[in-house]
Amino acid sequence: MATTTSIEVPDTPLLGYVLRRADDALVLGHRLSEWCGHAPTLEEDIALPNIALDLIGQARSLYQYAAEIDGTPGRTEDDFAYLRDVGQYRNCLLVEQPNGDFAATVVRQVLYSAFIDPYWRTAIGSKDATLAAVAAKSAKESAYHVRHAGEWLIRLGDGTAESHRRAQAALDDLWLFTGELFEVDATERALIAAGIAVDPETLRAEWNRTVDEILAEATLTRPVDGWMQSGGRSGRHSEHLGYILADLQHLQRTYPGATW
Amino acid sequence: MATTTSIEVPDTPLLGYVLRRADDALVLGHRLSEWCGHAPTLEEDIALPNIALDLIGQARSLYQYAAEIDGTPGRTEDDFAYLRDVGQYRNCLLVEQPNGDFAATVVRQVLYSAFIDPYWRTAIGSKDATLAAVAAKSAKESAYHVRHAGEWLIRLGDGTAESHRRAQAALDDLWLFTGELFEVDATERALIAAGIAVDPETLRAEWNRTVDEILAEATLTRPVDGWMQSGGRSGRHSEHLGYILADLQHLQRTYPGATW
Repeated sequence: MATTTSIEVPDTPLLGYVLRRADDALVLGHRLSEWCGHAPTLEEDIALPNIALDLIGQARSLYQYAAEIDGTPGRTEDDFAYLRDVGQYRNCLLVEQPNGDFAATVVRQVLYSAFIDPYWRTAIGSKDATLAAVAAKSAKESAYHVRHAGEWLIRLGDGTAESHRRAQAALDDLWLFTGELFEVDATERALIAAGIAVDPETLRAEWNRTVDEILAEATLTRPVDGWMQSGGRSGRHSEHLGYILADLQHLQRTYPGATW
Repeated sequence: MATTTSIEVPDTPLLGYVLRRADDALVLGHRLSEWCGHAPTLEEDIALPNIALDLIGQARSLYQYAAEIDGTPGRTEDDFAYLRDVGQYRNCLLVEQPNGDFAATVVRQVLYSAFIDPYWRTAIGSKDATLAAVAAKSAKESAYHVRHAGEWLIRLGDGTAESHRRAQAALDDLWLFTGELFEVDATERALIAAGIAVDPETLRAEWNRTVDEILAEATLTRPVDGWMQSGGRSGRHSEHLGYILADLQHLQRTYPGATW
């Protein structure tokens, strides 16, 4: 076994739960930040990094809580972001998918935001006060994210033949990553029973309604539910995450403990 | 000053010289390896990684020699590749430029190979026996590289309107990085005087002839020499190198000393 500059993360249910939420936000935030300077319009070049900052802010709050739960002396939010390797990340596969063209980015954002927005709204009622507070702040942001991405998807789907074709292609490509949004393991099931975590199954009807309304207005065809890809929640990621972490972590791996 | 997992490299003329040659080969080899699985034809999908392997092999030989010159106990070829940060790399800016479309990759390869091929041929006469041996092996490889890339550039330039347009655009974009190929600093000037290094100025006529012949057959227009970009030889790189090193080094920075 090689030595590593990665941290060891205790295997406890609440910590695992918080990291799943945090990793989704960080990885999607990083993906959106890649658009900075490249978005199709100036307004969007500001909007996408703003959404990225919202998500990275959510990730920070959650990693700070993770450090508290973890309890290892000296552990900070940065350790979770910068010093875990691919197999230790717990985000769903949807958020690590490449930006592709603008349509792919928008579709990914719609599918995720339509899920996480009711998720945070529901999590405001968590019996865990820290999670409830993070949820209250995040729900305001996710409400905007779903509206913003939804409007873009309508514009693209109900736009030109080319933008319609691209939006439909992105939707067809990404659909198989939506099943994982609703997955929970036994440890999360226990947290749901305890009133700490949200049961994603209770959000399925709203997710369907939001997605269907946007797709209808966008004149896009909802893909048929088929085989769904999963693995991210147990650390089995697509090759894309390795490249994300290489970019994200290079500074900290090269200059351990560096601060601004 | 932050601590770092990077090595300290002694500042000696011969070591600097060897690293400039090695870094050119490694960075261009890495760039070409990015095409693996993505080249436009199966044959080219084999040819490009083969050229990449030639270049990485050259880099290895040179880094092994660098470790010997360096003399720090325990220093190996891997330290130079994996444990130097952007500012410590000494490659020219041309080789770190993005692959772009296939035309950009081919143009970059023509411009570099047309220079390095006579370079290695001349370096066979170096008074440094190790460099002479590396040059003898590398010259056989670079002769093939310039022929292969040249044939592709002719095919693209003298192909369709679209391939011509792209090849010309790549040529116009990359031309300003060709000046740096012929740069030498005072320390290299001394090695040239000692018969160890090659004076690139003596290769200019051949480089011009090779490039002009290929461009003529490709029906491409040689750009006018204007302002030339430099900085790579003194560690001032384009942002692209940081992303290359993040990918290249992530494993070693995360698992220090890991071996196969």
